[in-house]
Amino acid sequence: MHTAFIDNIFYDGSQLRSGFIRETFGLSGDAIVAFRGGCDVSPEHMLDLEDLEAGQGIRADLMLHLIVEHFDIDLPLATARQRLLAALVGELLTREHGVTGLSRSGDDLYLGERKLSISVAVKSPVSGLIHFAMNVAPSGAPVPAIGLTELGIEELSFAAQVQAAYVAEIASCDRAASKVRAAR
Amino acid sequence: MHTAFIDNIFYDGSQLRSGFIRETFGLSGDAIVAFRGGCDVSPEHMLDLEDLEAGQGIRADLMLHLIVEHFDIDLPLATARQRLLAALVGELLTREHGVTGLSRSGDDLYLGERKLSISVAVKSPVSGLIHFAMNVAPSGAPVPAIGLTELGIEELSFAAQVQAAYVAEIASCDRAASKVRAAR
Amino acid sequence: MHTAFIDNIFYDGSQLRSGFIRETFGLSGDAIVAFRGGCDVSPEHMLDLEDLEAGQGIRADLMLHLIVEHFDIDLPLATARQRLLAALVGELLTREHGVTGLSRSGDDLYLGERKLSISVAVKSPVSGLIHFAMNVAPSGAPVPAIGLTELGIEELSFAAQVQAAYVAEIASCDRAASKVRAAR
Amino acid sequence: MHTAFIDNIFYDGSQLRSGFIRETFGLSGDAIVAFRGGCDVSPEHMLDLEDLEAGQGIRADLMLHLIVEHFDIDLPLATARQRLLAALVGELLTREHGVTGLSRSGDDLYLGERKLSISVAVKSPVSGLIHFAMNVAPSGAPVPAIGLTELGIEELSFAAQVQAAYVAEIASCDRAASKVRAAR
Amino acid sequence: MHTAFIDNIFYDGSQLRSGFIRETFGLSGDAIVAFRGGCDVSPEHMLDLEDLEAGQGIRADLMLHLIVEHFDIDLPLATARQRLLAALVGELLTREHGVTGLSRSGDDLYLGERKLSISVAVKSPVSGLIHFAMNVAPSGAPVPAIGLTELGIEELSFAAQVQAAYVAEIASCDRAASKVRAAR
Amino acid sequence: MHTAFIDNIFYDGSQLRSGFIRETFGLSGDAIVAFRGGCDVSPEHMLDLEDLEAGQGIRADLMLHLIVEHFDIDLPLATARQRLLAALVGELLTREHGVTGLSRSGDDLYLGERKLSISVAVKSPVSGLIHFAMNVAPSGAPVPAIGLTELGIEELSFAAQVQAAYVAEIASCDRAASKVRAAR
Repeated sequence: MHTAFIDNIFYDGSQLRSGFIRETFGLSGDAIVAFRGGCDVSPEHMLDLEDLEAGQGIRADLMLHLIVEHFDIDLPLATARQRLLAALVGELLTREHGVTGLSRSGDDLYLGERKLSISVAVKSPVSGLIHFAMNVAPSGAPVPAIGLTELGIEELSFAAQVQAAYVAEIASCDRAASKVRAAR
Repeated sequence: MHTAFIDNIFYDGSQLRSGFIRETFGLSGDAIVAFRGGCDVSPEHMLDLEDLEAGQGIRADLMLHLIVEHFDIDLPLATARQRLLAALVGELLTREHGVTGLSRSGDDLYLGERKLSISVAVKSPVSGLIHFAMNVAPSGAPVPAIGLTELGIEELSFAAQVQAAYVAEIASCDRAASKVRAAR
Repeated sequence: MHTAFIDNIFYDGSQLRSGFIRETFGLSGDAIVAFRGGCDVSPEHMLDLEDLEAGQGIRADLMLHLIVEHFDIDLPLATARQRLLAALVGELLTREHGVTGLSRSGDDLYLGERKLSISVAVKSPVSGLIHFAMNVAPSGAPVPAIGLTELGIEELSFAAQVQAAYVAEIASCDRAASKVRAAR
Repeated sequence: MHTAFIDNIFYDGSQLRSGFIRETFGLSGDAIVAFRGGCDVSPEHMLDLEDLEAGQGIRADLMLHLIVEHFDIDLPLATARQRLLAALVGELLTREHGVTGLSRSGDDLYLGERKLSISVAVKSPVSGLIHFAMNVAPSGAPVPAIGLTELGIEELSFAAQVQAAYVAEIASCDRAASKVRAAR
Repeated sequence: MHTAFIDNIFYDGSQLRSGFIRETFGLSGDAIVAFRGGCDVSPEHMLDLEDLEAGQGIRADLMLHLIVEHFDIDLPLATARQRLLAALVGELLTREHGVTGLSRSGDDLYLGERKLSISVAVKSPVSGLIHFAMNVAPSGAPVPAIGLTELGIEELSFAAQVQAAYVAEIASCDRAASKVRAAR
Repeated sequence: MHTAFIDNIFYDGSQLRSGFIRETFGLSGDAIVAFRGGCDVSPEHMLDLEDLEAGQGIRADLMLHLIVEHFDIDLPLATARQRLLAALVGELLTREHGVTGLSRSGDDLYLGERKLSISVAVKSPVSGLIHFAMNVAPSGAPVPAIGLTELGIEELSFAAQVQAAYVAEIASCDRAASKVRAAR
């Protein structure tokens, strides 16, 4: 799996498609890329139908975005890996950065009642895709929010930390799946 | 998904097969079952080839065992859900029980250098299977170990808590996968 | 699986897509929904290429429509379940309603030379979809047709009967697939 | 798909494995074969765990057996096709042979309270397998039973009729799945 | 698998979609079709992102085109079969037509430094698709090229030869996959 | 993908199982390993039913063996990759070693009427497996045979050449499948 970071990409939802990582980051194959930028997902690119129905928008002034692409996987596996990514971010914040009071509900992370992150896992015709983004500052979100800055997290080094941990997790999953015998 | 608990089942590895849950717990279909008992996995039933090669055995005097069975899933998805289960146990211990200093490495949970859990995800001809077990007491393990009792966790109610959380997580994954549009 | 009924939806083919059931019936996940209304499938929404080539149109003045959506299944399974749905409708008409002389050819039901139903099974990026519709009155169809009314069938209660039978059939399939051992 | 018939094969359950059709009928690839013979499934070869638990045995003095093998299909598709086969047998009996009062419950056919058939769908490591058998005479069965003879059906020509209809059904499914466009 | 040939079809890339073979050749199901014509793939229909980025175009004045469609296969299998097709064309040229000095690099055939063929394997929502085309004359290509004419190959009979060999190869693969037992 | 070579392993067919590469070569994950040794496949380990029926045995005094294991792939893909491996060996012999008169029929390579290689592709519960072996000397084979020595090929360096080419081919396939857009 490849990793890369680019500063200053505004996320309007059109980035969540196969080809974006290749075109923008020059990477070929499975990858987890990160970028920093504002977020305002247009209804046309809102892939979660519940979000679309809720109608309150997906917005924030400054977020740390992660996009994951795994080729040739189906939606159940993309969804399981999305949850694993959310859990892993929570673990890093708790264990490495001493953040207390964090909770995960499905693909969302909260500090108390305040939302730290947004996420969706989808399928393109050739791949599974995950968008997972955390507020840097809480401003601009349509719900009570908290950002990484208030938690004392510098977002650029945190991005690299999350990327490395996710790459290691997937490598460990692949390795595990190739060293077991079948059960009866 | 169904859940059930039975006290006093000794785990020798022969339990990690399709049919065990049905025969022993009377449950049909996807399930996460729990039982309490000793553990000594015979080489014949050791499905992780690395464990088999290490040759130090998989043993503990008293563990809380969880076995998960999902029908018609492949090994990559079973492995991702196994990691999610390990992460979820860590989250419950940290958030609900105030345990500090816990870390997860793949499918293993540690407190400092001491190992809390063992786990393997495998495939039977008709299902994906996960064994995840936590020491109740640390005695009998071939490595430095810690048990739930020392953490102040009563294992029977904790089993129910983990089972409920896992069932909710999978239901949430299934729901998420049925409310998204495809990406391009 | 969920079920629901809405009166008065005109079927022009645009309904056979993932998201329609969710938006129109407020249901999330696998479902079989029913509605009553006219039918005139525009070429743009004609998903069966043979129908498109035949060029005679897919039309009827009043039909009882069923749309089935199963998430994360492929086209061969969607097609097998479509045939099972057609067979099941034939069984209900024969056994519960005393209709005689019915025959099934693939996904079509006939009474003698007259066509009772139309159907297509397709794949969306995230699900398998089935449209199965029966004439209420035979008027407006481009081929000799028969409707439920002439067979003495009240379409609303019949819809509920078919939905219940299909839900039971799929539940029974799922249960069967989780209680067998593998063959050699 | 290939078809073949052999008289006088006793079914003890060991026939439901990949390789049986090839060895016994000399056929390679997907097939539906038929044979006539007694039936007494030994517990060792009872692949339905519910049957095994019920403990009343699967027996009859003379049955018409069908075994279907489709290579490279999974259990949900094998199960859907098994139900389709059961439905198709019911349709032939009703429509072509004038049998009345037949009902299908999942993979079983009944005349009133009397059972006509037994069936199981399983997965081998390389294929999906279906066993579907009808009593010729009702003797020897552990439940109230009816046989083809009492229904006025000559079993050899009926076997050929069912085989031809199943082959046509699967060919029609395959054809249908290759002439549709994808839905959105 | 079906085969067919049509003279004079200009390839602009819009032909590489499910439905083209059916509409143009009147064939239903898996097929390998051939046609002769110019080639200039518009960026809109360029499915290989690397080609799109390279920006030098995919062009030739006269090519022998092959399009393969296999329903219900995924991209890894479509890609493996594409490579097999390229290898098979090379084998026929070498063995049956005495061409020397041919080399294959992935899905491309070369004579020395000169390129003989272009190819891409893709996935449509319902099938795997392969385009494989060889220059008849080398004119019009954006890179040093060689054509079948210079190799002394009459393209129409060669098309038939390749089609027959590919059909035999796939039939042989299918047969092989249905005559093996599973490994442990 | 990993590669390794060990001298002097006698192939009796028991090597064609998941776990052999790990235990014998200490490699984890997808691999193509080579070894040199005699060959006499016992009926118990003969996985090709046709070979088993033919009854003439699979034997040779000295062969260069290759075993490929890809985790989590199905039999059709394993079979396509086996053919690709056979084609690739033929290409190397022709292009790099100037062997003329070679022909491939499915998974077998011949020089005129004499057989150079044997092969089978199978599925284990967790992986796809390929055995492909070439005679070093022709002695001991039950059919007219030719060996690498007579072709002037030194088998150890040729093993490394084939392994490198196969690893490159699969990497190229994976890369190709992650740089295409979906077709309609």
